[in-house]
Amino acid sequence: MSSEQALFITVEGIEGAGKSSNIAYLQELLEKHGHELVMTREPGGTELGEQLRELLLGHKHDGMSYKTELLMMFAARAEHLHAIILPALAEGKTVICDRFTDATYAYQGGGRLIDMESIRLLENFVQEEVRPDLTLLLDLPVDIGMARANQRSAPDRFEKERHDFFERVRTAYLEIAQHHKERVKVIDASKPLEQVQQQLSEVMTEILGVA
Amino acid sequence: MSSEQALFITVEGIEGAGKSSNIAYLQELLEKHGHELVMTREPGGTELGEQLRELLLGHKHDGMSYKTELLMMFAARAEHLHAIILPALAEGKTVICDRFTDATYAYQGGGRLIDMESIRLLENFVQEEVRPDLTLLLDLPVDIGMARANQRSAPDRFEKERHDFFERVRTAYLEIAQHHKERVKVIDASKPLEQVQQQLSEVMTEILGVA
Repeated sequence: MSSEQALFITVEGIEGAGKSSNIAYLQELLEKHGHELVMTREPGGTELGEQLRELLLGHKHDGMSYKTELLMMFAARAEHLHAIILPALAEGKTVICDRFTDATYAYQGGGRLIDMESIRLLENFVQEEVRPDLTLLLDLPVDIGMARANQRSAPDRFEKERHDFFERVRTAYLEIAQHHKERVKVIDASKPLEQVQQQLSEVMTEILGVA
Repeated sequence: MSSEQALFITVEGIEGAGKSSNIAYLQELLEKHGHELVMTREPGGTELGEQLRELLLGHKHDGMSYKTELLMMFAARAEHLHAIILPALAEGKTVICDRFTDATYAYQGGGRLIDMESIRLLENFVQEEVRPDLTLLLDLPVDIGMARANQRSAPDRFEKERHDFFERVRTAYLEIAQHHKERVKVIDASKPLEQVQQQLSEVMTEILGVA
């Protein structure tokens, strides 16, 4: 696999896992090796998607039904694929996406307890054959993640959830990793940043031949 | 069937079919016979739904993918059922809804050519067993509807579609009526308003024992 091949990479993890810092590191690492990158995020990534994100993460619609939430997530994703991700990949660019469908399995499936089969039907309808080439799961105990997240900004509609919600999210993420070992690489994100970056660097070397 | 039994009634039709005037007539007719009513519409019906409606019907997102549109329609519908329709029916109120899932089959299925099976999966996920008790389909030739609609306000994102789009929408509506004769009553909306109301009145007498 050439280091310049267009890749669809997603980064996942609960609140406080350090996604932002590690995505910045990943970006640097891939750019060094000649990848032209598109950095994006979910929910959001398009103008329409960002408006849906605002409705989803804001507190104006706190009583929103779980089905509404799930469908809005996939609506934003359909637009994101259509307008950003698929065109970028077609142009040979590597896409690094902060959260994708694994987050839906983890948050709406694990957290909200929506049945995984319904999520799978939506995934197939929206994505057809498209799946990430590589997913980096930044994993850490919920307590550590929440302690880190609480030092930052005011919590959004998801961050306000209780401890057991995030335990179910983490468990769902780890189950996905277990079932998709080829695609999902678990990074121990409880470690200090340099050690997390060391792990990221090793994974990228091993998988993509870059580092 | 007692005239006061809570009913879920939907009104469907292409642009210019006269939904607004006829819904007002229907409202009067049902109120006279003791129904406590909730008047609502799709897409919309809730605060979140109306915000989604704005994104769906406005021209800011003209290039939105058909899948995005379909999922946003069902997201708004999930919220509408959860927050308005099901609570109203549970309180014994009759709900009159300006467009519902038949419109999705007609516009997104017939008009946009999204496969009907995907729409059916979403319908089952969002609505489970819930279906309207009665649907009034205000049918008329596309030319007449468009001529009427054009006399009104500036066209929304759907009204801007071409003639053949609305022909497919009308055909899909009529096919639904053909397949659900018990539920869907076709009203000839090309006639003058009094004659349309006469038909509505007859249908309501026949079906519900009110008029």
